[in-house]
Amino acid sequence: MSEYITHDLTGETIGQVEKKFFTFAEPPHEMVLDSGARLGPITLAYETCGTLSAEKDNVILVLHALTGDSHAAGVYGPNDTKPGWWDNMIGPGKGIDTDRYFVICSNVLGGCMGTTGPSSMNPKTGKPYGMDFPFITIADMVRAQKALLDHLGIEKLLSLIGGSMGGMQVLQWAVQYPEMVYSAIPLATTMRHSALAIAFNEVARQAITADPHWNNGRYYGGQKPDLGLSVARMIGHITYLSDEAMRSKFGRRLQDKDDFSYNFEGDFQVESYLRYQGAKFVERFDANSFLYITKAADYFDLSSFHDESSGVKVFSRAMARFLVVSFTSDWLYPTYQSREMVKAMKKSGLNVSFCEIEAEWGHDAFLVPNERLTNLVKGFLDSVYQNIR
Amino acid sequence: MSEYITHDLTGETIGQVEKKFFTFAEPPHEMVLDSGARLGPITLAYETCGTLSAEKDNVILVLHALTGDSHAAGVYGPNDTKPGWWDNMIGPGKGIDTDRYFVICSNVLGGCMGTTGPSSMNPKTGKPYGMDFPFITIADMVRAQKALLDHLGIEKLLSLIGGSMGGMQVLQWAVQYPEMVYSAIPLATTMRHSALAIAFNEVARQAITADPHWNNGRYYGGQKPDLGLSVARMIGHITYLSDEAMRSKFGRRLQDKDDFSYNFEGDFQVESYLRYQGAKFVERFDANSFLYITKAADYFDLSSFHDESSGVKVFSRAMARFLVVSFTSDWLYPTYQSREMVKAMKKSGLNVSFCEIEAEWGHDAFLVPNERLTNLVKGFLDSVYQNIR
Repeated sequence: MSEYITHDLTGETIGQVEKKFFTFAEPPHEMVLDSGARLGPITLAYETCGTLSAEKDNVILVLHALTGDSHAAGVYGPNDTKPGWWDNMIGPGKGIDTDRYFVICSNVLGGCMGTTGPSSMNPKTGKPYGMDFPFITIADMVRAQKALLDHLGIEKLLSLIGGSMGGMQVLQWAVQYPEMVYSAIPLATTMRHSALAIAFNEVARQAITADPHWNNGRYYGGQKPDLGLSVARMIGHITYLSDEAMRSKFGRRLQDKDDFSYNFEGDFQVESYLRYQGAKFVERFDANSFLYITKAADYFDLSSFHDESSGVKVFSRAMARFLVVSFTSDWLYPTYQSREMVKAMKKSGLNVSFCEIEAEWGHDAFLVPNERLTNLVKGFLDSVYQNIR
Repeated sequence: MSEYITHDLTGETIGQVEKKFFTFAEPPHEMVLDSGARLGPITLAYETCGTLSAEKDNVILVLHALTGDSHAAGVYGPNDTKPGWWDNMIGPGKGIDTDRYFVICSNVLGGCMGTTGPSSMNPKTGKPYGMDFPFITIADMVRAQKALLDHLGIEKLLSLIGGSMGGMQVLQWAVQYPEMVYSAIPLATTMRHSALAIAFNEVARQAITADPHWNNGRYYGGQKPDLGLSVARMIGHITYLSDEAMRSKFGRRLQDKDDFSYNFEGDFQVESYLRYQGAKFVERFDANSFLYITKAADYFDLSSFHDESSGVKVFSRAMARFLVVSFTSDWLYPTYQSREMVKAMKKSGLNVSFCEIEAEWGHDAFLVPNERLTNLVKGFLDSVYQNIR
């Protein structure tokens, strides 16, 4: 999430939303994960906005990125001044128009914002799971979301939308439950995690596990691996921005001084910014969740689903209409990776629109208010909705 | 240094070389640094190859990058199988032809390969400097090299060559001692460290200082901050490669296994590679040197030298002929930064050739055997040498 960007409220906000919880996979009916391990019970934290139509045909599932949560739009109460992470996109009259659509967003499996993850209580030990939490994949996250939709009695999704790791879930949904998905909007994402993206995640994980307070994941109730997690977050933040964005935002400007300090306290604004982001992140995120979720992203390779050896083959399962969007300055999931995905979709005979948006914000661009993106999403959803009615 | 690349010995090696030492700035005649602090005595480790001409007109100063050393070419003895870091470029008949030229390379000030740095003994306390070591700049490194040349009785440099931070020293030399420099070859470098480059260095430093064994720099004789330094090195290594290089070198290939391990031991080859690089680095490099030298690179902005406000103005001091080289896949010091430098040189009326070399190796490309680069350097040096004789 681009916490440094003021979330310009383009229009009215959805208003008050509520975090709800759904629990399933109660033993002995645990969920079987890709790794073969069993997990249960599982609680999913989720939020909804808009109104479900009588025909239940206006549902849009929003999938969040690495460190996001179910709080995509709106506020929690009259005194809450910080709306959800995609409030600029979701709301009355916005890109995802809550006057027309019913929006659902849940915190991913393995997360730490209300959904079962490594910081949750392990019913077998009465203690937090820590490293006893089983490994999860993007497909496992999607399985859990499917259980939530079943619970809500929703059989069809008008659309799915998400950027980055949210986009991986979008793609996974389209091939895992193809009959449920009318349309899908993967943003700033990839069909398979690249060596570069794995490399950054691995170094971030190493930073966490190098912190002695990590203590092999057993830090709950004690001192947390804040320094390690903070370094991990700083690494992530660099990859979310572009060289161009950093130049225009920070350049070589000094922080509150006229000359070099000749110490290690930090001279440049970009240093202060990263330290601030690191320090803020450890207040809200669990280090073990970071380890598990980045690993799920690293494991992601859509073409390995059901042992399909190629992207084309895996997309032949899909039935959705797609809108694929990439951003010029995104070097974490560069446009060539979106093009590769679009090519595979087209070869499978799918109806796909592709747009590369000129944007200087790097990977974070999908979260930044952008009229072009808003209009693309709005137009695509309108068209799909018209088609099915 | 690209330690994973076999240094193809294109032709004969220079043979045996010897590390020598030169000590100067003995108290009370300490060197005054940019920060205003005084440092002395200072020892520089250096090596030479080739033969100094009677006219002393064939000297080429080679400047190393962040973690390099004085051992640019040749071997230390008959049983030494690992030649210097740029042995593919320096030697008889090579790009820098030791049959014609006399090559000098010294370990930078602040380093840990024989030159005075934070791990050296502080004569005032009888203990290693640690965090009492004064801050240094690229200009300070160049001042120390100038003292070495004075000691060797060398008044003119036929050429200076270096990549990355070595290139910064090349540029600094050309404006700091313009009358000494006939020609200069900055490779894969920049006139000013960008926000992106500063950001990576800052996160690497944070990884070191987050390690409790760092102990505010007082770890000599005890346990070293190996985990922190290892993470710092891994961050660096990612920035030295390109997305393209990582794809072709590692892709998503698994390390010694057929399927995901579902643990944190590392599944992918790129993970093993980074861990190996990190572990190997801590054996040879001092964490405090890493802190000081990265800071010197971050401070580097040639246009701030002598309070010149623009690149054009600062280059108006220079007299050298330049060959500037950048590499297509280098995203740490991208080509646009070399172009900016070339533009400023041209506006100052300097004789400058510029070449962007097509290379997939990212920033590391300047160290990888490359016929195009070798020929460019060779041709440029021949031409300059012919001109002055």
